[in-house]
Amino acid sequence: MPVRHISEIKSEKMNVSGAENVELQWLVDSSMGAENFAMRRFVIRPGGHTPLHSHPWEHENYVLEGEGVVRIGSEEYELERDMVVFIPPGTEHQFRNPGNRDFILLCIIPIVEPE
Amino acid sequence: MPVRHISEIKSEKMNVSGAENVELQWLVDSSMGAENFAMRRFVIRPGGHTPLHSHPWEHENYVLEGEGVVRIGSEEYELERDMVVFIPPGTEHQFRNPGNRDFILLCIIPIVEPE
Repeated sequence: MPVRHISEIKSEKMNVSGAENVELQWLVDSSMGAENFAMRRFVIRPGGHTPLHSHPWEHENYVLEGEGVVRIGSEEYELERDMVVFIPPGTEHQFRNPGNRDFILLCIIPIVEPE
Repeated sequence: MPVRHISEIKSEKMNVSGAENVELQWLVDSSMGAENFAMRRFVIRPGGHTPLHSHPWEHENYVLEGEGVVRIGSEEYELERDMVVFIPPGTEHQFRNPGNRDFILLCIIPIVEPE
């Protein structure tokens, strides 16, 4: 099905060391026929965060709702709705929600072979 | 600058045959260091539409605001906020705004060499 509402897409806990109170949905991935990049939607609950980590692929992010913070390398930036983030490959990064409402963002990544 | 608000990013008219009343912003592209895919934001004004066309690369779309219609091949689908679209490579498609308020969506495409 080439068109879906997010309410039709299953949500899973981000089950990675260093992640707390994060849920994610795979909105577009190889199961829909995407060969080059995948679109995910993250919900970071109040107090939650993604892992502080790096990997050889980039992120492109768009903030849909709420407020949060992104660390990229040694810098931190405050984020709000309609902000765009580019995280270069190989750069340490983390998204955090220090606020009291959900912080929701899209995260697009290249489809890479598992290492 | 790896973090920007959309208000800091210039908007341009979609200047392609068959497009009417569409403005677009390049949110992430190769000028920011992206090598694999680019993120654009389209504002389709009431009555506006993108061209009915096809190309050898896919689209991944996320609807941010408003309502509209997407044609994919011979099918049409109604769209609203928080809907996701995957348009396979080589498939004819068009976004239209038959409503009376702006229809706003993200469109992610692979970065391809001009043909």
